[in-house]
This record gives sequence, C-alpha cells and structure tokens, in this order.
Amino acid sequence: MLGVCYYPEHWDENRWETDARRMVELGISYVRIGEFAWSRLEPARGQFTFDWLDRAMDVLHGAGLRIVLGTPTATPPKWLVDECPDILPYDEQGRVRGFGSRRHYTFSSETWWRESARIVEMLARRYGTHPGLAGWQTDNEYGCHDSSLSWGPEDLRAFRDWLRRRYQSTDQLNEAWGAVFWSMEVTGFDQVALPTGTVTEPNPAQRLDFWRFHSDQIAAYDRMQCDILRAHSPGRWITHNFMGFVSDFDHFKVAENLDLASWDSYPIGFVEKFPFSEAERNRWAETSHPDIAPWHHDLYRGVGRGRFWVMEQQPGPVNWAAWNPVPKPGMVRLWSWEALAHGAEVVSYFRWRQAPFAQEQFHAGLNLPHSDELSPGGAEAAQVARERAALPTLPATTRGQVAFVFDYPSYWATMIQPQGRDFRYEELVFRWYEAFRRLGLNVDVVAPGAPLLGYALVVVPTMLQVSEPAQKALAEAEGLVLIGPRAGSRDRHFAIPQGLPPGPLAALTGTRVTQVASLRPGLSQGVTGAVSGAVARWRDHAEAVGAEVLARFDDGGPALTRKGRVHSLMGWPEEGLLGQVAAHMAGAAGLRTLALPPQIRLRRRGDWWFFFNYGPGEWSLPEGFDLLLGSATVPPQGLTIARSWT
Amino acid sequence: MLGVCYYPEHWDENRWETDARRMVELGISYVRIGEFAWSRLEPARGQFTFDWLDRAMDVLHGAGLRIVLGTPTATPPKWLVDECPDILPYDEQGRVRGFGSRRHYTFSSETWWRESARIVEMLARRYGTHPGLAGWQTDNEYGCHDSSLSWGPEDLRAFRDWLRRRYQSTDQLNEAWGAVFWSMEVTGFDQVALPTGTVTEPNPAQRLDFWRFHSDQIAAYDRMQCDILRAHSPGRWITHNFMGFVSDFDHFKVAENLDLASWDSYPIGFVEKFPFSEAERNRWAETSHPDIAPWHHDLYRGVGRGRFWVMEQQPGPVNWAAWNPVPKPGMVRLWSWEALAHGAEVVSYFRWRQAPFAQEQFHAGLNLPHSDELSPGGAEAAQVARERAALPTLPATTRGQVAFVFDYPSYWATMIQPQGRDFRYEELVFRWYEAFRRLGLNVDVVAPGAPLLGYALVVVPTMLQVSEPAQKALAEAEGLVLIGPRAGSRDRHFAIPQGLPPGPLAALTGTRVTQVASLRPGLSQGVTGAVSGAVARWRDHAEAVGAEVLARFDDGGPALTRKGRVHSLMGWPEEGLLGQVAAHMAGAAGLRTLALPPQIRLRRRGDWWFFFNYGPGEWSLPEGFDLLLGSATVPPQGLTIARSWT
Amino acid sequence: MLGVCYYPEHWDENRWETDARRMVELGISYVRIGEFAWSRLEPARGQFTFDWLDRAMDVLHGAGLRIVLGTPTATPPKWLVDECPDILPYDEQGRVRGFGSRRHYTFSSETWWRESARIVEMLARRYGTHPGLAGWQTDNEYGCHDSSLSWGPEDLRAFRDWLRRRYQSTDQLNEAWGAVFWSMEVTGFDQVALPTGTVTEPNPAQRLDFWRFHSDQIAAYDRMQCDILRAHSPGRWITHNFMGFVSDFDHFKVAENLDLASWDSYPIGFVEKFPFSEAERNRWAETSHPDIAPWHHDLYRGVGRGRFWVMEQQPGPVNWAAWNPVPKPGMVRLWSWEALAHGAEVVSYFRWRQAPFAQEQFHAGLNLPHSDELSPGGAEAAQVARERAALPTLPATTRGQVAFVFDYPSYWATMIQPQGRDFRYEELVFRWYEAFRRLGLNVDVVAPGAPLLGYALVVVPTMLQVSEPAQKALAEAEGLVLIGPRAGSRDRHFAIPQGLPPGPLAALTGTRVTQVASLRPGLSQGVTGAVSGAVARWRDHAEAVGAEVLARFDDGGPALTRKGRVHSLMGWPEEGLLGQVAAHMAGAAGLRTLALPPQIRLRRRGDWWFFFNYGPGEWSLPEGFDLLLGSATVPPQGLTIARSWT
Ligand SMILES: [Zn+2]
Ligand SMILES: [Zn+2]
Ligand SMILES: [Zn+2]
Repeated sequence: MLGVCYYPEHWDENRWETDARRMVELGISYVRIGEFAWSRLEPARGQFTFDWLDRAMDVLHGAGLRIVLGTPTATPPKWLVDECPDILPYDEQGRVRGFGSRRHYTFSSETWWRESARIVEMLARRYGTHPGLAGWQTDNEYGCHDSSLSWGPEDLRAFRDWLRRRYQSTDQLNEAWGAVFWSMEVTGFDQVALPTGTVTEPNPAQRLDFWRFHSDQIAAYDRMQCDILRAHSPGRWITHNFMGFVSDFDHFKVAENLDLASWDSYPIGFVEKFPFSEAERNRWAETSHPDIAPWHHDLYRGVGRGRFWVMEQQPGPVNWAAWNPVPKPGMVRLWSWEALAHGAEVVSYFRWRQAPFAQEQFHAGLNLPHSDELSPGGAEAAQVARERAALPTLPATTRGQVAFVFDYPSYWATMIQPQGRDFRYEELVFRWYEAFRRLGLNVDVVAPGAPLLGYALVVVPTMLQVSEPAQKALAEAEGLVLIGPRAGSRDRHFAIPQGLPPGPLAALTGTRVTQVASLRPGLSQGVTGAVSGAVARWRDHAEAVGAEVLARFDDGGPALTRKGRVHSLMGWPEEGLLGQVAAHMAGAAGLRTLALPPQIRLRRRGDWWFFFNYGPGEWSLPEGFDLLLGSATVPPQGLTIARSWT
Repeated sequence: MLGVCYYPEHWDENRWETDARRMVELGISYVRIGEFAWSRLEPARGQFTFDWLDRAMDVLHGAGLRIVLGTPTATPPKWLVDECPDILPYDEQGRVRGFGSRRHYTFSSETWWRESARIVEMLARRYGTHPGLAGWQTDNEYGCHDSSLSWGPEDLRAFRDWLRRRYQSTDQLNEAWGAVFWSMEVTGFDQVALPTGTVTEPNPAQRLDFWRFHSDQIAAYDRMQCDILRAHSPGRWITHNFMGFVSDFDHFKVAENLDLASWDSYPIGFVEKFPFSEAERNRWAETSHPDIAPWHHDLYRGVGRGRFWVMEQQPGPVNWAAWNPVPKPGMVRLWSWEALAHGAEVVSYFRWRQAPFAQEQFHAGLNLPHSDELSPGGAEAAQVARERAALPTLPATTRGQVAFVFDYPSYWATMIQPQGRDFRYEELVFRWYEAFRRLGLNVDVVAPGAPLLGYALVVVPTMLQVSEPAQKALAEAEGLVLIGPRAGSRDRHFAIPQGLPPGPLAALTGTRVTQVASLRPGLSQGVTGAVSGAVARWRDHAEAVGAEVLARFDDGGPALTRKGRVHSLMGWPEEGLLGQVAAHMAGAAGLRTLALPPQIRLRRRGDWWFFFNYGPGEWSLPEGFDLLLGSATVPPQGLTIARSWT
Repeated sequence: MLGVCYYPEHWDENRWETDARRMVELGISYVRIGEFAWSRLEPARGQFTFDWLDRAMDVLHGAGLRIVLGTPTATPPKWLVDECPDILPYDEQGRVRGFGSRRHYTFSSETWWRESARIVEMLARRYGTHPGLAGWQTDNEYGCHDSSLSWGPEDLRAFRDWLRRRYQSTDQLNEAWGAVFWSMEVTGFDQVALPTGTVTEPNPAQRLDFWRFHSDQIAAYDRMQCDILRAHSPGRWITHNFMGFVSDFDHFKVAENLDLASWDSYPIGFVEKFPFSEAERNRWAETSHPDIAPWHHDLYRGVGRGRFWVMEQQPGPVNWAAWNPVPKPGMVRLWSWEALAHGAEVVSYFRWRQAPFAQEQFHAGLNLPHSDELSPGGAEAAQVARERAALPTLPATTRGQVAFVFDYPSYWATMIQPQGRDFRYEELVFRWYEAFRRLGLNVDVVAPGAPLLGYALVVVPTMLQVSEPAQKALAEAEGLVLIGPRAGSRDRHFAIPQGLPPGPLAALTGTRVTQVASLRPGLSQGVTGAVSGAVARWRDHAEAVGAEVLARFDDGGPALTRKGRVHSLMGWPEEGLLGQVAAHMAGAAGLRTLALPPQIRLRRRGDWWFFFNYGPGEWSLPEGFDLLLGSATVPPQGLTIARSWT
C-alpha cells in the first residue's frame, strides 16, 4: 500500500480538504503527520494549541486516510532550548550543537527525558484513541546528522553512571580497558573523561564503551516513548523511521520496542554517501545503485522481525547530497515496486508537496511547490497505485536462501580501529550483498545470535566480537557458513583474545591468525586454488589448525579454508575474488543461481519473480515465465513481474 | 597616470627625499600612504604623534606628488584591542579572531564605530585641506581574509536589531523564513540565534539575511567614514580599494558613498584563488589568465559609475598565494596598459620598495629590498610611464557592446544553496565573460536594476532573486537579453516563487521551471538545435509557455528558448556550448566579432584598439590598422595599440 | 648489541622470570623499562609503590640483563592532571589537549617542572645505584604527536618571559619583528599575544621566536632531568629516545645534555609519514624506502656526537600509520644490520610481547600476544643475534666522505614561510641524501657551526639563517661545498638581509639573489650547462657577482655557480638534475663512487662493506670482495657483508 508524509502546518487550512481528497484519488492509504510540529503544538511552555491538529486529523480521517502520528521530539522549540540548555548536544570538539535545524538534543540529558515524556504523553492522551489513528512513529531518524553520540557535560555524567553500573569498581574498569598502559588508570569513576581531545588516540576500549553507552541510551529513550504511547493508545502499533546508512546505534535493540520497523529511502542521495568509486557514482547517479535500497529493505525486514515500511520514499531530486540530479524517468515507480517486492507493507512518499521555504526547498514532493499539480514522481506514484490495484494480492514473503549476519558493534569497532584507513564495515557487507544479489539470490539480514536454521548459506562478512549466543547460532547453523577477516579478533573487553583470533570461533574454523596486514590502495596479494584473484585492504596471516586449505596466497599462506560447514576467507576480496567466492559458496550450498548483469536484479516474493532493470539497455527474461506486469523484455528503468513455470 | 603605495613609517626619514624624487623621475604622479599606520599615529590612547606624517606629506608634496591618504582602520593597534575587546570579530566556529595581522574588527561593534569615527576625524581635521592631498581611501580591502562576516556576541546583538527593523514582528520573521518548518519559530527577536553551529544546515533565509545584514553594515560603516571626511576635507574625492574576488558584500552599495572605485589587482595570485582547472592554472601561472584583471576593471568601472583606479598593481611575485612565481618579463607592463585600456584613471603599484620584514617580505616592490635599485617590475613601470608620455592623450572610454548584470546577492544565495557542490556564481559569470571577450567585444558590468539602454546584448548569467527594478530594466532593455539557469528561482524571502521559477521573469522568458538537477562531475546532458553541445553541473527542467525552443536536450526538454528579445539557457554550458551560445547571441544581436585565440584579447577605448598577447607565441593583427604602439606582430607578453581604418 | 623494551607492569609477575630468561637466550643484553609507569609508581599523591619495580629490576638483573630505566614523565597520571590542570598543553586553536593518551603536558608549566623534578628525583634516589642499571632514558619521544609547541595561558606567560630576556625592551622587539608593519607594535611585553588566531597570517618573526622559545624550553627541561639523574646516579649514562621525522625542536641542543643519542625506528610507518609520491609509497610499503632508517642513523650519530642507539626498532606491523602492512620476510633482520652498519651501539626492539589491550594492540612485538611464542620478527631478531655472535667484532665507525649540514631552524622557517606550498625542508634534505647514497657514499650529519674539516664534500641543502659560526665553518671547510636555494635569505631577526641573499654567504658564493619564484606542480625551469635537467618548486633569480656560471636556466640566469670551492644551486632540483649535480660534485671532489640501483644501498663501517637489498630482484656485488656474511648475490630483503680487496 502507499502512504505519504504531510505537513498540514505548512499550508493554509483551506487547502487541507483538497489535499486529502487528492491523496485518496491518487491511491494513498496512509498519511504521516506531526513529527516536526512542536512549536505549533506548544508555542510557549504549557500553552497547548492542539486545535489545528484536531482539525487536520479529522479532515484526513474524514477523507478515508489512516494516520501515522509522529512524536515531535526531533525538533524541541526555541523556548525550551533557551529554558533548558542542558538538553543540547555537543560535538566531538566540545562545541555545543545549537538550535536552528533539528536533532538538537542529547540522549544523556535527564531534563530532555522529562520534557520528551511530557509532550509524548500530551499527544498520546489526546490522540491515542482517535479513530483515524493507525499507529505512531517515535521521533524522527535517530542518529541522522551524526546525532547519536554527544560529547558534553551531561554525556560525561551519564557515561560515568553507565560505567559504574557496568564495572562496579574502577579496578574492573582499569582491567577491562587495559588502563595500565600509558598510566591511564583511574581511582574513581569521577576521574573518567570523555574519549576525545587527547594528544594522540584515546583508549579504544573506552571509545567502544562510549559507543555502547549511546546505543543503550537510544534504545532506552525509545522504549520510554513507546511505554507512554502504549499506555494511552491501545491497539495502535509503533514504529520508528530509521535512516539509511546510519549505524551508530544498534537498530535491532531499538526495534525490540517496536511493532514494526520503517526506514527512509533516498536511493540517489545515498550514492553520494556510500564510499563508491567515482566511476560507480557516475554510473548510478541518476538511478541509484541497484543494491542500495534492497539492502536496506532486507536489513529492516530483519530489524522489524519480518515487518517493515518505507516511511519516506524519495519522489524526485533531493536537497542534501553533494549533487542532486533528477532521477531518470521510471525510477520512482521502480523503487516503489522494489520495496514491495522486498516485503514492505507500505511505501510512503516524502512528501506530499514540495516546500517552497526553509531547508528542504529543493526536495521534490509528489506535487510541485505551491500547486495541486503532480510532479513527475507524483505521476509515477499514481501509476504504482493503479498497477498495484490491477494485480492480485502479493504473495507472502518467505525465507531467503542466504542469511547475512549484520553486527552494529563491528561497525563501531572498525571505526575505532580501522587499522587501514579504508576498512569500512558497511562497505564490506555491501560488497558481499551485491555479489550474492548478482547471483539472483534472496537475502535475509539477521542479528548476531539469532537462529540461523533453514538457511542454505550464512555469510558473516566480519564480526569482531563474538558473543556466546552468536557463536552458538553459527555452530548450530544448518547450511554452509562463510566467515570473513578480523572475525573473533576482539574479546568482550576489546582485547585480543586468549589463543589469538578468531577466538571463540577457532573450534569452528580450525584457524589461527598470528599477524594482520592492512594494505594501502595499490597493494594486493594474489590468491590461487579453488578460487583465485586477490585481496586488497586487509589480510589475515593465518595458520590452518584443523581446517582444509582451499586456496592459498602467493606466499603459501591460507587464503580460503574449510572445516566442515565453515569457510574462512583471510582478507578483503577484490572484485574478481569476491565473485568467485560467492559463486563457490552458492554452488557448494546447492543453490540455483542466475548470473545477472550489473544493472539487473531479481527479487522473489512467494512465487512472484520481480526483475528490475537499472539501465541502460534492455534485458530479456530467461524462458519459462508467465508475465504479471510488464513484458519479457525489460526496458531501462523498467520492471517485470512474472511467475515461473518451474 | 601612474601611482605607487608608500610607507614612510617603514623607512628612515632621511630616505624620504630620495624616494620622492625617484618616484617623480620614474613618472609617478600619485602616492598612497597611511592606511596601516595607526600605531604610529596614536601609540597610546590620546597620544597623537602626527609630526612624522606632517613631514612625510610635506616631502612628498614638495617633490610634486599628489597624495592619497588612507584611513588606518584596517589595523587597530594593540592598546585599543586590549582596552575594547568587543571590537574583535569571530569566526563561524565562534572563535575570536585576534590581534596580530589586520582586519581584526567586526562591523557590528558600536565601540568600533566610535573609535573609527574618532581616528578618522582626527586625520580629516589635520590633513583634510593639505595642499598635497588629492583624495582619501577609506580603510583597506573590506572583506579581505574572509572578514565581511563575523559570528560573535556583538554580531548577534546587531543582527537582532537589524531583523527588528526589517520585520517589525516575529510573526513576519517566522513567515519570511518559513520557520514553521522544523519548529524553528521564535516568539521574540531575542530568541534569534546566529545561523551557525546547528546540527544540520541552518535556515537558508536566515543565512541570507545574515549576509544582507553584514553587507548593509559595511556600506553604512563606509558611509560614516565618508561623511566625516567630506565634512572636513572639501574638494577631495573619496575611494575605497576593493579586493578582487571578494563578493561577500555588495560593492555597488558601498560605492554609492564614493566618488570613484578602485581595486587591488594581483593577476597572478588570483590564478590560484579562482577555481580554474589544474591545466589552466599551469597554463596561466606566470602571466595570469587574460580575463582575470579585465573582468575586474570592467566590474569596478561599473561599480565606480565610470570612474576607477587600480590602487594596487602587482609589480612582481607576491607572498600570499599557494605558489608565487615571478611573472614573465613584460607582464607588469602588459597589466598596466590593460588597466589603462579598460579606463583606469590611475595605475598605482603596490609597493614602492619591497619590505624586508614582517608578513609581506616576499611581496615584490618597484624597488629591491633595502635599496634604491629598480626591480624588474619597476623597470617595466618606468617603461609604461615613458610610453604613456610619448603617446597622445587616450580617448574617452565609451559604452561597451555587451552588458553583464552582476548580482552580489546571487553569490551569497548560491553559496548558501549551491545544491550542486560546484555551482559557483563567480565562475559562471567569469566563463560567460571569457566567452564574449574571446569574440573581441567590450563588456560593461552593471548592477541589477540599472538601465540597460544602448546595449546590443545583455547577459544575466543568473539572478536568483529579481527585484522590481531589475525586472523592469530587463523588460526595457533595447538589445537582446540572455538569461541563465536558476534565474528568478527565489522570491525576496528566499522562497520558491508562486507560479514557479523564473518568477517575475516568466512573462519575459515564456518559460516555467518545474524541476532542477545538479550534475556531478562526469555527468552532462547533450543539447542540439540552433546551438549544440552539453550542459554540466546544472540543468533546469523547464517548459516553454510562450517561448520558441531553439535547442533541446536529448530527452526533448527545452535547452535554449527565445521569446521576443529574451533568450533563456536552461543549464550551465560546457565549453563548447558556451562558445556556441555566445556566438549565436552576438550574431543575433548584429555585433561584429573577432574570434580570438585563447591567449589574445582586444579592448577598445574610443577608436584605439589594444591587443594583448598573453603568450606563448606571436600573433599578428588583422589588416587595417595604424599602429600607435608596438608592431603588427604582437610578441608574447607584448601589446600593440592601433587605430582601425574602418 | 641487542636490546628490548619491556613492560613488567603489563604482565603477571609470575611471567617475569621466563621473560627475562628467554630474552637472554635470544641474545638480548639490554632491557628498557619504566617510562610509562607513573600510575603504578605513585597511584595517588605521595603514595609510592616502588616494590614491584624493585622486584622487576632484580629479576631482570638477575637474569643477566642490563637495565635502561625511563623517567615516566610522558604520562602524568589522572590524579595529577586533575589536581594541576595547568600542566596540560593546548593546541593551536586554543583547545586543551587532555588526559587519556600520552604527552599531555606543556613544557611551559612551572608546576610541571616541579612535579617532573619530584618524580625523577624519587626514581633517581631509589634506583640510581642499582647494580643492574646501565643508564637512563629521559621521558619518551619529545615532540611526538605534535607535542613540542603548546598554545595555552602558561605558554603565553612563559613566552613573554622569554621575550623579555631576549629583547630587554619592546623597542627592540618591535624593531626585530618589523612590528611597524600593520601597526603590530606593542608598548609592553604583556601586550604580546600568541602567534595564532589572527585574521590572516601572524608575523613570521614572532612565529619563529615562538618556535625557538619552545625548542629552548625542551632543551632546558631535559637538562633539568639530567641534572637530577646525574646527582643521584653516578657513572650511569643518560639518553633520550628521539622520534623519527620530528624536527620541531633542535635535537643537537637537547643532546648537549646527553651522553648518547637514541632514536625510535619505524621504517614502514615512516613511509606513510614522509611526503613520498603514491608510486613511491606503494613501491616501498612493505620494506620501507632504503634511505629512511639510514638517514636517521646518520643524523643521530651526529646528534650523539658519534654515539647512538636504536631504542625502539620496529619488529613487525605497527598500529599507527594510515596503513600497516606486515614487513616482507627478512626486513627486521635487514633493518637491524643496517643500524649496526651505521654505528648503532645497540638495537633495541619495541617491544618484547605484543600488548593485547589498549592503543597499541596492533603493534607487533618479538612475541605474539599472550604467549611465549616468537613472532616472525622475533625469529629474525634471534637470527641477528646469532649472526652477530658468529662474526668478529665490528670495526670502528670512521668519518664519512660527505657531510650534510642539518639545520632545525631552517625546518621551522620554511614551515612558517614555505612561499610555495611544497617547499619542505626535510624533503629537500632527504632527496639530496638519497642522491649521494645512490652513489655509495657514507654521509655524516653535522650541526650548523660544527667544524667541517676532513670532508671531501659538504652539502648544505639550504640554511635560511646563517650564524657567524656557521659561516665560519663553511669558509674553513677543506672540501667542496654545495649550497642550495634560499641559503642566507634571512637574517637573525628573520628579515631579508642587507645586500640581499645569500647575506653572509655572499662573499663565499659570489652571487646575489634579487627575486625568488615558487613553482606550482607542473611548472619547471630547464637548466643546461655542466649539468642539465630542470628545477621545480623553487627558483632563486640570481646574479653572479664573482662566481663562475657552470649551468644556466633557459632564460640565461645562473643555475649552478662556482666560486673557489663553493658551488651554489639556484633551485629545487628535479630528479634528473639532482642526480647530475650529485655526480658532478662527487666527481669534482675526487670521490670514488658506485652507481647503485634504486633498491641497493651500501654502508661502509671501517673496512667492512654492508650491501643491503630492498628488493625485488637479486643483485650481485662487484668483483673484489671477501664475504663475511651472506653471498655475492644478495637476495631480495637480504644483505651481504664483505671486505674489499682494494
Ligand atoms: Zn527524513
Ligand atoms: Zn593590499
Ligand atoms: Zn615509541
């Protein structure tokens, strides 16, 4: 189903009726509102002006729309900031991050928790049982604009409290951090400082704890909002709209509080954000890379325990990337269908009408600024609605062939200790995902420790710290397992494990890593054997202790090993090796694959096959399909939905 | 005529006589002094030590020189800074910018206005009627070293006052800024913050107002100095020496106070400052690009309403660019003649003698450090003086064939909202200027709203906000008009205009822009029709509503349109398209053009034709000229002055 | 002899005996301890816990090891920082650099001097006569992590005091700094500010004084520690471990206090730090460039007046560079032998065992983390010990053929005034060093003003300020002298000298420099004559006044001149010209040279010739050698020691 984000407070009230009617006509079922409206709901402390929102909800509900109401905590108003400056966040250089945009609060501020609870409760009480209300969105895009971590006095206070609870004594803290090194020991928790502003790099264990602390805080803050909403709004679901490529906190943990996950999909903006090469950026500038949105769909389906929305779908050019081209004709339709193919319950466009003022003037909407005239993206959304209505109900999403274990703490840990400047966890994961998607496989993304039963293949691009549940899940996996470099290289205190890496995975992998090399761009190390090519960026110098060596480096060291079901790859694979290992693993796992060209992707939902063409150039389906939508030759920026005979 | 900048306070008093005599012998008529001498004029509060300046002026005047006296406000002395730290400016990160170089004050400080008025009045009273005094220079290079904008407490106070005057009520301010977006509304002017230090980008309308506020302040500050000078120095003119490529404030507004404009010409230093490609930088490193100085001459002739000087002319290598080569032999002469060809009343070299100490040790002068020996640049200046004396009086400067409308607020607006990282207003204007100069045309630069009568062609590279006078002037233009992308894309509150861009120009252009695309380097969009080539960086997706389409993009969208006299180009032209459009417009305007190679430029002053060769390689004049200076074959770094037979 | 760095406080006490025994078995004679242990020696003020160190020293001594004890001042503990925050340093932006890593103190703090003296005296009294104690190391790596200069209130206070002593009156200070320029004059020393945070660049003379002030402070601080140690530890030597490529203070001055110099050799990490091209970085990533470690050996042999150690030798991959590859097999052995060939008395590896925790987890040791198992580097160290034991005693190091005058103030001066962005003193020196080493010559590095008798050739890559002793030493040199661009271009007050550069060298060189050019990458100026090629980056425009011109620029200006023994080169030579000038000078000096390929280096110690092969590819010795170690064909990453027949 389709939705849209709408800001009644941005428009004359006499336009609301028309807007609501035209939404329904276009085929929209859900409308998200309210998440930035605090200054209009409470223009001064205790002076609530809910009347306009009452009327807006009635108009929308009256037109037949289901409402998603956002809590407005992403934008505390100026009077509140002036009254309580202790809610403001600080950057890593210790400068306050002030009022004037959004997300100007720290999760560490007790004042902020109190004020958040107050406004959320006001809204929950007033609208919790509104007949038009379908569900809630908490806040907006936690972590966006680098807002997960804060470095102010409130953060230091809260961090010390968190450490007190975690370690009980400074002896244990000193031990955990290896603080004897460089005389970093403390004798009281009040001696702990923020891990910043040091002469050279701060203690990595302290940095990791600081990241964990913030991740914990975000989950707790969201739970606080959920608890209030649930108390006053029976029967309504709650979600949060996560932002793509924000991994500073553990989304799986936050989602434990939620009924479903949602995410904000800006496929073209993300092309500038992800570390693609310049050639790739030019290649995909006007269509997006064909795995960017799908990766997030699969991730948030996992985060949402099977249920997710796209809460904000890019409907045309945006305003915030380094360059913002107009998407090629057809892409808004393609992205929408891709979300549905991956199991999205709702695709909700951001936003109904382009704002003529303020920071997002250049951000397209379904309608042109000022007007009731559909934009090109709006026209494509209408087409999706028509196509959707003409088709039978989509079949249920089923388990993928391949499971990816995605581990947020590995992102933090490699940010803290890249060791080679280009070791980026998200990039490593993405390249593996791309490789398996190029084989036409469906991928599920799961949390470390989640059961891995039923998958033919499990991919762990890396996982620096391996908890007991994560180790157990891998040991009990039924399919093949592929484990990448640096796995198990740190214990829970962020130290090198006893017995050397891969630590708790050693029994499974039959390997031991004695040295590691990070390789500057231009350096690589050749691999030959069952697979061949080269690794770049990273190499584990390992020994096989029980494992069979399937491929070796030029100097004879193990490159790909196997012990039972478990394969280990001792480096960051260059493109050729990456493809070979993916094919090798899929073959060994007995999976039927389809070698797709770079611009084509397949996603299966039940017995429907969705083929997407990111162009340029046509592409013809293999034999053996009944067409449901589109033709056997998929045009550029087009898609075909089909059922397989086989 | 020639001038020179001189610092008597830098040299033993017994050298002054010789210096003055040698200036006159070299052919110098004007000498600028005093603009950095505050600590020598008032070494402690109220202790004035004018005697040395009395003597210096008498020596210079006695030698036959005319004196330009600078007010010393660019360098407040340390005792004043220590006494009144509220005069100091702050950078955008909120760090104070302290004593130790120059321009260490903010235009927002009331203390600073008072202290400025005090020292200016002291000087005006003492020297205002000195017989050697020709005129005044206010301050020095407003805006140099990013000193236009300041971000301190005094600036916040003054900004709030400015907003109070502009908007009267916070309701109007909130409306103008679209502050309902992200709950940015304020309920009192004291709630307004500086547009910096926000979590993500601040409100663009607020940023633009902050820029306007500073621009207004600079104009008012300069007017304050002018008012005092005029009161005490009857019959003397006043100028300010603007710095090249500083566009943070509106020079046209400042010049309203002035009798004539002047600017500081560092052709080689600017090659490193302007966003040329590396290939271009290498090509022009030792000669400068042939349009850098001319552009500024034409700009400041416009700013000065026909009257301008070069107050500081580069006489050799300088000290402040990333690299500082020695200019090729002949360039100092060439630059001097080019200034005269463009109508400069005086070319004044910076400086008489290279300083052996302090920040500008590496900055050449007309004389070598310590000595009375001419530098190579000094010898070329002497040659210019001899050549000038041997020629008849230069004819008067006449109106150019082409008018360029230069709009400082468009620079601010595109800095605030580039939307594509490489959309730089100054670069766009410069590339158009280069294209028309390559056709041998004379260009005048005019302010938005100035009458455009008498020009065969008017070029508006862009103008984001179109005021009523600017609209009216374009409507009343007699020649053809060429309007670039983004024109009319913002209303006076920096919002997208009703009816979409080009807003108030729509009736003239017959177009409507529904979407815009910024294109990353490597992307471009092909154009064919009356002109062909490609646009890069930017494309307006437009519709013709009344206009004829002369060229189209590959997808069929209008690229170049015409309605009556008014042409619109829907993008940033790549080099090929740029040249074609310039030639097309000149042809349609009936202008006689001369296709010049990259290193040759022509400037006509009255019936004199000046040909400049930036090298390498000789170049021969077309037939049909009587030579006034130089030969029919212009050598590299040479020039020829001729009268046309025709 | 071999040594190792050891941290007993990092390991269970019951491992010490085994560690000590295994060190001796490996062939280690010296063990350095204690330099980061303050928090374990004094966990709270006045609570000393020396017992563990007593026991550790006894264990090590008992095993037959000689101990080097470090003063722990590089890591003041948290309780001290909290109690005395005035010891903390500030960065150039005025932000405090806090606790949490190391080197968090400023040399300007009187509190810090008092606290340093207190802990040093405690250690000196307790261990000064310990029978196992061989000598002392003061602090650790002065200047590492940009810690030489500090910009806080204590620094300002101390800087003013230093200026008072240097200049006596502000008149003299104003004169020295040329403060009349831009009204920078002060009327009291309390008006002097730090040379930072100005609107444009601060006064260069002030900046140079600020650098000199810090250099003086570091030498005085080290002397303070030495005085205490000498008072309580008779008969023990004192060293400091300098860090490679740290030139912010004058190492010659610090070493005046020391009995011998030592330095910390990280050949691979330095490849990322030195401004090599990307191609060179890739070429040498896994072996290091063949002149990086040798340059430092020769420098510190000079600094140590003939005596030096490698205090920390890289034993495998490190943790702190942008990329950290595993060194190629053989390199740890090669580096060790190279140090011995250059005269190192001891090569001490950092560290005994890889730390599993804290900031240096990725830093290899001679043993793997947690274990008693040698790492690959540990095995190579053992090989060096065996080889060393099997050979006769090394002959004494003798005077080199070529002297390089290395001038720390020229580094500061060109950092302050690069004039061209890529004028880097260390790079210029290094390229000359490389050129002469490629000729197979032994190089000694000497301080400016040190006698230059006995050298066939003296190289002065540049020396901006030439003191009387430096001028005298050059005048009295017996061999040829080669002087580079910018020499003598500043007087002692950092002004252009009377009579123009090369100032006090003019009588020796017979030249005068009237203009200088810095050349952007891509520009160069051709040279022909006795040598040919081109200069890039920099050209002195000079006149020969008494000198013979051996080569000229394309425009006729002198490029290489000679007056008697003294040659001057008027630019930064590109690779071709560099090699020609080096060969020309060596030939003219009558030196027998050997043209070595890029990967081969020779070092002679007495009559032993050491050939090192940095690979790839074998290399065969010329005829005429008796082999002492290795073979006539040197394998990649191998070495051969031989005696010449001739
Ligand atoms: Zn969003
Ligand atoms: Zn100037
Ligand atoms: Zn070290």
